Amino acid sequence: MASMAAADVEAMKKSNAAGREKFMEVYEQLKGELLADSELVTFTDESRAWVEEMLDYTVPGGKLNRGLSVVDSLKLLKKEALSETDLFNACALGWCIEWLQGYFLVLDDIMDSSVTRRGQPCWYRVPKVGVIAINDGIILRTHISRILKTHFRQSPIYVELVDLFNDVEFQTASGQMLDLITTPAGEVDLSKYVLPTYLRIVKYKTAYYSFYLPVACAMLLAGETNVAKFEAAKEVLVQMGTYFQVQDDFLDCYGAPEVIGKIGTDIEDTKCSWLIVQALKRANESQKQTLKDNYGKKDPSCVAVVKRVYNELELQKAFEDYERDSYQTLIADIEKQDDHALQVVLKSFLGKIYKRQK
Amino acid sequence: MASMAAADVEAMKKSNAAGREKFMEVYEQLKGELLADSELVTFTDESRAWVEEMLDYTVPGGKLNRGLSVVDSLKLLKKEALSETDLFNACALGWCIEWLQGYFLVLDDIMDSSVTRRGQPCWYRVPKVGVIAINDGIILRTHISRILKTHFRQSPIYVELVDLFNDVEFQTASGQMLDLITTPAGEVDLSKYVLPTYLRIVKYKTAYYSFYLPVACAMLLAGETNVAKFEAAKEVLVQMGTYFQVQDDFLDCYGAPEVIGKIGTDIEDTKCSWLIVQALKRANESQKQTLKDNYGKKDPSCVAVVKRVYNELELQKAFEDYERDSYQTLIADIEKQDDHALQVVLKSFLGKIYKRQK
Repeated sequence: MASMAAADVEAMKKSNAAGREKFMEVYEQLKGELLADSELVTFTDESRAWVEEMLDYTVPGGKLNRGLSVVDSLKLLKKEALSETDLFNACALGWCIEWLQGYFLVLDDIMDSSVTRRGQPCWYRVPKVGVIAINDGIILRTHISRILKTHFRQSPIYVELVDLFNDVEFQTASGQMLDLITTPAGEVDLSKYVLPTYLRIVKYKTAYYSFYLPVACAMLLAGETNVAKFEAAKEVLVQMGTYFQVQDDFLDCYGAPEVIGKIGTDIEDTKCSWLIVQALKRANESQKQTLKDNYGKKDPSCVAVVKRVYNELELQKAFEDYERDSYQTLIADIEKQDDHALQVVLKSFLGKIYKRQK
Repeated sequence: MASMAAADVEAMKKSNAAGREKFMEVYEQLKGELLADSELVTFTDESRAWVEEMLDYTVPGGKLNRGLSVVDSLKLLKKEALSETDLFNACALGWCIEWLQGYFLVLDDIMDSSVTRRGQPCWYRVPKVGVIAINDGIILRTHISRILKTHFRQSPIYVELVDLFNDVEFQTASGQMLDLITTPAGEVDLSKYVLPTYLRIVKYKTAYYSFYLPVACAMLLAGETNVAKFEAAKEVLVQMGTYFQVQDDFLDCYGAPEVIGKIGTDIEDTKCSWLIVQALKRANESQKQTLKDNYGKKDPSCVAVVKRVYNELELQKAFEDYERDSYQTLIADIEKQDDHALQVVLKSFLGKIYKRQK
């Protein structure tokens, strides 16, 4: 990136902005269709207004990386400018992923007693909403089926799309279950924070829907039918999703708050983070006891003690080693893929996240 | 029923008991398959034990009427003894409906702050569960997709089944939304309790999944492909579901607690019940004021005042008139159906609920 000419950077920014604008146009269209759904129009003005407000609040406010990457991936797979139909379909599936994420986040925030999300109060914290947010989560889930049915029911990939979203929903919910059971609120049992458990939670809770799902959508749109290619892509993307989450955990503690846009609280929140897992693996008995005594406490001095142990154990270096190894393994695995266009897609994904600071 | 010979009654009871036993066998099989799911087996013993306990607690403990009626309906549509495969498939789809109901009830109970369900504490009230119940609800939803995929992915009706369950989920969640928005907890605005709103809530929240869904499953299994027949059946069954809910509302106030198995609390809970809708429609200004002052109060003397107004307005007679009219309309609509076997199915459904006391 550092070596790009200023004009290229400018051109890329413009193209990204145009892509985002088109993507938002498709959001407005999909929302309009859902609100004009034959079932829902028989409802009251009040309930339609509710759905519209809920959608605007919970669906499009994030970075939209997952959704937009369906479009980017399809462009790379097709190796040519996309037709209007291809572009629309990629945006629609991108929005299905954003809807899926909205559905999970609305419900996760209730389960985690979170306060803010995307710079505003969590949806369930809006006074008139409260527990109705649970049903709104379900409504978001049902919208994915509506969008798929409206735009893909006649397509030869309809069944594959429905199965894909169902499978990924199952995997994500399973990862969330494992996370909830391993780290129940108000209880600290660090003996459960071991690497295989950590990797399983991350793989299921994050990697499938954030990394595999966008590429799988693009592959289906590109007409890919070879199951082996999906499996090969899945393996690499799930690895990449794991690396992405490890970065997230690292940045929560070591990232610059003004760059990552938030102050990390994984230590206070007793999160099963990559850092605590690594720390427990490397610690001697005395350090282990210190971690047990101080992890999951709101008191800033306890947090400082945990960070001191992290530093004693040189976790920054451990992360840098992990990052380098992950990159090399991923590049090697990507270059093993038969399909060149798929290699380009996977390298583009990796390029976007390698050594990210936010 | 009163005119059946004792031997016939005995035979029917035995056949019902055998049907229920087979149905429970299929539950155990489906549960076993879900717990041995290739994804889940990589999880911990602890999480598999959690899923098993959650399923046993939330899925099979009800009356199983909806699930069993898929089997009963298919028998009537096929007009011959069912093959082992047909019987298994009908049971599997019946269980998908029970899973769907479990999913909605687990989440509804949280939204309604309910205390007990099916004679035991609501799942979210189990101390170790709490808000994890929200994710368990999602897990139940994903199991429906897993069961359909495992047992019907190769079947020509797979897409129809997936669409049917998605559509009904959307309708039920929409009805629940309308109910939550119309009657938010802690607020009493009786001006919203009007018949069109009541009918819409009941139709969407209850009738589709309780009445249309089981028959539609049986019709698909019987090889029915005529869309018009599904539409015609839907119209009658949604009407029947409405009548069923009106009965429920009536029995909540006028049923014998020892027969219906619970003490009704619709008045205390400010429910948008058929009775309050009818009462507000018939009341003069003074009675309206009395209802407003006393509806939705825990105080038994307030409940008694509401019941007194119901009696002044002769709501028991109004219900009897409604019940007679509904029955006649339903029979007439059923006899308009082209398909004789479908008429038999619909009449059998109606026979099971007409003038029910519980």
